[in-house]
Amino acid sequence: MAHDDLQTFQAGQLLARGTARLLAGYGFVSIEEFVPARGLRVDVIGLGPKGDIWIVECKSSRADYQSDQKWRGYLEWCDRFFWAVDEAFPDELLPEDTGLIIGDAYGAEIVRMGPENRLAAPRRKGITHKIATTAARRLHSLRDPDMGQELG
Amino acid sequence: MAHDDLQTFQAGQLLARGTARLLAGYGFVSIEEFVPARGLRVDVIGLGPKGDIWIVECKSSRADYQSDQKWRGYLEWCDRFFWAVDEAFPDELLPEDTGLIIGDAYGAEIVRMGPENRLAAPRRKGITHKIATTAARRLHSLRDPDMGQELG
Repeated sequence: MAHDDLQTFQAGQLLARGTARLLAGYGFVSIEEFVPARGLRVDVIGLGPKGDIWIVECKSSRADYQSDQKWRGYLEWCDRFFWAVDEAFPDELLPEDTGLIIGDAYGAEIVRMGPENRLAAPRRKGITHKIATTAARRLHSLRDPDMGQELG
Repeated sequence: MAHDDLQTFQAGQLLARGTARLLAGYGFVSIEEFVPARGLRVDVIGLGPKGDIWIVECKSSRADYQSDQKWRGYLEWCDRFFWAVDEAFPDELLPEDTGLIIGDAYGAEIVRMGPENRLAAPRRKGITHKIATTAARRLHSLRDPDMGQELG
């Protein structure tokens, strides 16, 4: 298969790529650009083998982080929350009570585990259903692109 | 995007394509070649907006149907079970107490609704998690093909 042309990726997408590889190493599947609720869009959401939900926001720069007004709203949609940044990022900016992933396009590692706040069962069920729906719909639109307009 | 080259599809895959379009019309997402349990592989599994699970087996010919020794094993993994066949298929072969979809590569319709046997909640939860995992993993291997070998 063709290699990705990483030069076409934005900085945050490069971090998301490495983060997805990291999560796979933990047995998590993940999807990018997930919408847990209207008006919210997270960079990466991971689903663990036992149903754990992790959210990772990828920040390419101080300005990128400081312009994010929405991240606290993501906490209630996951068991653990992480930032993903590159080595050059000034990580002292990031709140101590959030997880920290450092990486690049090729991989990443967890430097600080995000504290756990377990989701209530109905919300976990709803998010899992939405991850299934989002991933299957994207896969379907790739498998049958002529169907795209009907899939929404 | 390029159109699919349908000439490379097997007969069952053409039916699966039309069936996936049908399911999308019902608000269901679907994935193909889903493994609900070791040793079982279903042609199409659909997940509805309220969490309903439908399984569809695609049969291209009498011989294809008669050689299937496993389909009764699929019943316990879904709320409704259907066959998908084309117009030429001798549908009197199919048990009356199963659903019937008739279609082709471009679409399909439900001729007989499969009777409902509701899954128990823990099994529904498990299947939904597995649909999410399967779809997200396939999507990831398309998004990051160089990662393929680690995804298993």
